[in-house]
Amino acid sequence: MDLYFSPLACSLATRIALYEAGADAGFIEVDPKTKRIVEDGSDYLKVYPLGMVPAIRLDDGALLTENAAILQYVADRFPAADLAPRSGIERTRLQQWLCFIGTELHKGLFVPLFDKKAPEGTAANTLAKGETRLAYLNDYLTGRDFLLDRFSVADAYLYTVLNWSMATPVKFDRYPAIQAYYTRLQTRPSIAKAFGEELALYKAELARHKAAA
Amino acid sequence: MDLYFSPLACSLATRIALYEAGADAGFIEVDPKTKRIVEDGSDYLKVYPLGMVPAIRLDDGALLTENAAILQYVADRFPAADLAPRSGIERTRLQQWLCFIGTELHKGLFVPLFDKKAPEGTAANTLAKGETRLAYLNDYLTGRDFLLDRFSVADAYLYTVLNWSMATPVKFDRYPAIQAYYTRLQTRPSIAKAFGEELALYKAELARHKAAA
Repeated sequence: MDLYFSPLACSLATRIALYEAGADAGFIEVDPKTKRIVEDGSDYLKVYPLGMVPAIRLDDGALLTENAAILQYVADRFPAADLAPRSGIERTRLQQWLCFIGTELHKGLFVPLFDKKAPEGTAANTLAKGETRLAYLNDYLTGRDFLLDRFSVADAYLYTVLNWSMATPVKFDRYPAIQAYYTRLQTRPSIAKAFGEELALYKAELARHKAAA
Repeated sequence: MDLYFSPLACSLATRIALYEAGADAGFIEVDPKTKRIVEDGSDYLKVYPLGMVPAIRLDDGALLTENAAILQYVADRFPAADLAPRSGIERTRLQQWLCFIGTELHKGLFVPLFDKKAPEGTAANTLAKGETRLAYLNDYLTGRDFLLDRFSVADAYLYTVLNWSMATPVKFDRYPAIQAYYTRLQTRPSIAKAFGEELALYKAELARHKAAA
């Protein structure tokens, strides 16, 4: 299995899941600006026309895209790592959280803040709408260690998205349960390793863009 | 099972799935503006603090939210209707499409177009970004009747979202496969019935808002 990723993008969640599973996987870096594969300069748009990461190349050669699908696939592929409930209402709750993170936080809150072409005023409007989502999440996380009763791929995704607070005006001062959850997950071995490696690659990416400018 | 819905909102997908399944379900209308339950005027924010639909009340009294989770739950609850592959890579592909529709079309393309507080210029920026997604979807749908090899809850969701072209500047003139897919699904009995009923409720909602203004 190969993972197409960009440093600290939402593909980080899949890397964390793969590390949790001890999976034997390849990692193929995609430059998010040029959409070129870093190693050989080839065109990622020929792999996936939308140019988004993560995408994974399955063993039969097929390409799988979209976070919620990829994370559940990885969990099911490596069941010993217990990264997702197998079935029933607990699996449904996992899907609920994956969907909430993907739609309300990832696309609803963070993507507009990263959009350099967004009109003036977008950040203020987005942050105002995001407050209700963060307050809801904060209430839910109060008294809990994880989104479900144990670590799951939904936590890998939520950590990855919360991590973008580093690069945006989203702050957790008023959301102590989110702050505590985020700080706690940072020390989890799979996450510390994945973040450390991708931070180094992210700095290299910035240097590459600066040199090309 | 009870479905909290607002007329022609994304909860329409769940109604379609319930009709496909011939399920015995209650339908509780939520006014999207006042967040009141239409029948008795009670506060929907006490049911679900984020005020979003769909939500379903399960038989054990628990509330389930988020489209991708609810649609898969309904499909699994009524397996005879064959609204979702049960497992394996085909189930993964269903999750891929649910995630794509939810993040790229629903939240990425349509929500900013419906946002009355969005700054000027949002529509143009959103439509420009949406073009790549619509072109990708159009390519995929070319030569296909459904997203998977047969009708699934992903089609119920995609139809529901495409339906918002009626109220937004999103048009399918340049996307003949999307246009054909949308037109074809409009005549499917479960969809024609669900749309007809919700259109009447939507007109009543507009009249109610006008009377209250």
